[in-house]
Amino acid sequence: MPASQGSTASSALGAFVANSRWEGIPPSLRHEARRSLLNFLGCALGASSDPAVASAARVMARFSAAGRATVIGRPERLDEMGAAFVNAIAGNLFDYDDTHLETVIHPTAPVAPPLLALAEMNGHTGAALLHAFVLGAEVECRIGTAVSPGHYDRGWHITSTAGVFGAAAGCAKLLGLDAAQTAHALGIAASQSAGIVENLPTAAKNVGMGNAARNGLLAALLAREGYLAAPTAIEGPLGWARAMGDMPDLARITDGLGSQWEFSRNTYKPYPAGIVFHSVIDACLELRARVAPGDIASVTVEGDQLLLDRGDRPIRTERDCRVSIHHAAAVALTKGSAGLEAFSAEALHDPEVEALRRKVRPGLDAGLPRGAARVTLRLADGRELTSLVADARGSAARPLADSELEAKFRKNCARVGRGAEAERWIAEIWNLEAEMEPAGLIRSLGMDGWKVEG
Amino acid sequence: MPASQGSTASSALGAFVANSRWEGIPPSLRHEARRSLLNFLGCALGASSDPAVASAARVMARFSAAGRATVIGRPERLDEMGAAFVNAIAGNLFDYDDTHLETVIHPTAPVAPPLLALAEMNGHTGAALLHAFVLGAEVECRIGTAVSPGHYDRGWHITSTAGVFGAAAGCAKLLGLDAAQTAHALGIAASQSAGIVENLPTAAKNVGMGNAARNGLLAALLAREGYLAAPTAIEGPLGWARAMGDMPDLARITDGLGSQWEFSRNTYKPYPAGIVFHSVIDACLELRARVAPGDIASVTVEGDQLLLDRGDRPIRTERDCRVSIHHAAAVALTKGSAGLEAFSAEALHDPEVEALRRKVRPGLDAGLPRGAARVTLRLADGRELTSLVADARGSAARPLADSELEAKFRKNCARVGRGAEAERWIAEIWNLEAEMEPAGLIRSLGMDGWKVEG
Repeated sequence: MPASQGSTASSALGAFVANSRWEGIPPSLRHEARRSLLNFLGCALGASSDPAVASAARVMARFSAAGRATVIGRPERLDEMGAAFVNAIAGNLFDYDDTHLETVIHPTAPVAPPLLALAEMNGHTGAALLHAFVLGAEVECRIGTAVSPGHYDRGWHITSTAGVFGAAAGCAKLLGLDAAQTAHALGIAASQSAGIVENLPTAAKNVGMGNAARNGLLAALLAREGYLAAPTAIEGPLGWARAMGDMPDLARITDGLGSQWEFSRNTYKPYPAGIVFHSVIDACLELRARVAPGDIASVTVEGDQLLLDRGDRPIRTERDCRVSIHHAAAVALTKGSAGLEAFSAEALHDPEVEALRRKVRPGLDAGLPRGAARVTLRLADGRELTSLVADARGSAARPLADSELEAKFRKNCARVGRGAEAERWIAEIWNLEAEMEPAGLIRSLGMDGWKVEG
Repeated sequence: MPASQGSTASSALGAFVANSRWEGIPPSLRHEARRSLLNFLGCALGASSDPAVASAARVMARFSAAGRATVIGRPERLDEMGAAFVNAIAGNLFDYDDTHLETVIHPTAPVAPPLLALAEMNGHTGAALLHAFVLGAEVECRIGTAVSPGHYDRGWHITSTAGVFGAAAGCAKLLGLDAAQTAHALGIAASQSAGIVENLPTAAKNVGMGNAARNGLLAALLAREGYLAAPTAIEGPLGWARAMGDMPDLARITDGLGSQWEFSRNTYKPYPAGIVFHSVIDACLELRARVAPGDIASVTVEGDQLLLDRGDRPIRTERDCRVSIHHAAAVALTKGSAGLEAFSAEALHDPEVEALRRKVRPGLDAGLPRGAARVTLRLADGRELTSLVADARGSAARPLADSELEAKFRKNCARVGRGAEAERWIAEIWNLEAEMEPAGLIRSLGMDGWKVEG
């Protein structure tokens, strides 16, 4: 139905992606793409030795054509679908990646991995890789805005459910699909969109992330083979937006397409924890400079309902730590830092942290804006100290500087013994737009590259 | 949380699957499993040369470990995930497979393919294969009943969305997972459940089918590697049932588990068309015996709202024919038969069929029960003939006999030039329970087997 396709969400996005030219992407957005990749690659490296990543790589290695694409930080080489699956899991594993705050999508982890695999395999340029990534992330965020906030509230893990569209769009661009094929790829993605919030504290969450990356690639490949989807797969009466959301605002998908960029609103996490806990951590780090942990009698953490819904929960595992008000406050106050080590198994079982966790009381202050937190310490001597953080470090109001992203990247590299390569990688990522063959960079991020060159 | 697991849907199903013994499966159900496999294998063979299957096989061949598992009716040998994907697509492609009528789940296509691949690769017995299949299909249908009818009405293609649970459960059984691992496999499946009704007239539907099979296997493999899911992944406040349904009846998942079998209600299609059109076809075939097509002035087809919702639509492709009131009536009245050839490209463009399609008028009779149809012909000479079919051939009230399933299987084999092997395959499938190594049978269903033995 070519005549009617111009009017559907898939066809509008398909035309946007297929017709986009790199020259038309604003320089600030190109730089944001590099920042996102730097941040993602560091996070994936930092998580690359985690058992969850190792297990995923082991399973995928059994179901992979002769190894071709790099698994970041690991010795396996897998086919593009397998590498996309594992790298998406690694990039998001520690809740340390990036966030489109309105939707709470973590944009890069589902979109970049299949593009990195295709670029490595097919020899695309750095500019082509960045271009496909920007477009994929934009499609992902726009589709997410159309169903937010009802979609997440209903139980959908939006990074996975919207991510598959972004991966499909980016892969369609890199594979050179035309507008109609790209529209069908997005429609096929609609039939693969999955992932539930209930599973967030478990590894099942990671499966949703990996599938978004892997199945987005599959959507583009099947569309290239001639597979079709309903033109109204996204907005039809029995389509994606209505099945998965309660009051979709479909205009958000296309309004200002190509002139306003949702992806420009991407932000980066300074702490490996759920985004709503970042202001809690900032407040506690500020208070830590004024008090000794042993003097604290009680800790009150106030925020909006979202903070309580997400973070007032029992703690059993490291995963729980990353989405816990109690742990975020206790570890920041105890250690005076909130890096990866603050959310490790050691920190979980640290007696000092455990003791302080028991003194933390979450409380509702519905008057606080989303993302804000007020932390009040009552000390053994009766004094009371308060810190209010309206905008967390790394939020849109206080974005991380390039230098802060570099420092984060270095720490992630050092965590897995790759610190010696960090400076070269940083330089190569900043230079990606001019790189004619980024396959060498991508390959060097694997374990083979490290053995040869490290 | 082992203590609380006994009380969740996943854990109850996990224990049911892991603890089930073949001796405890009633003989009638064992026979139903053989009937389902006979029917599925014939359908997959009959569709094996279709371009949609060929494209899927081509894509999967690029992403497959060295070929090991049979693709039914085809020369490719793929890894278990690839074979599961392609075989699930083939089995359901022509809407000719089986139906659990209450949920409109087509039970076998998502569940059997990964089990066939595992049995072929790992050398399981025929009884183990049948057992895993019965359990997988039972889990699939029970999860479907819990969210029906709201789930489908909301836009979820239930065969895909429930199928991934069935595939996960069956694979967990065949892989020997314990109760807890099986529960986690089901929870991981919840994060992979996808597929929308809007895409049903297109190949994107097939992607949902293929993914249910492939991702169910992935769920079981990841659970075996230690991946966990939320104990309440299915029924939790942000879990699968509430995200995907409006008023789930969760008791349906576990009530009578092990004593009442939803899978025993499986039915088989005599015609390759949507199940709601079968009574229309029966009525028209009956009328065809009393009238010459050229004498028909008009055709009125009456049924309930579901029939009209599904079948009153424009016809552009063969896929549309299989879900069209107009085509079902016209082709049955014109040709006096409704096999695969009646829903082919030739039939779509047959001038006689086209002419009669234009004379078909769908109408609502809300008093007719679901699945019933009344067809009234007005003849050129003024006469009026009516046929009312309350229960279609192949429905629960009029199940297809084993001999009818055999005849259908033979036709499917003949369609792809494999008629000479049909009798041997039929005998082997009926004998599957006693077969110690069904890998030979499975392998012979591929194209290599045909070359060697044909």
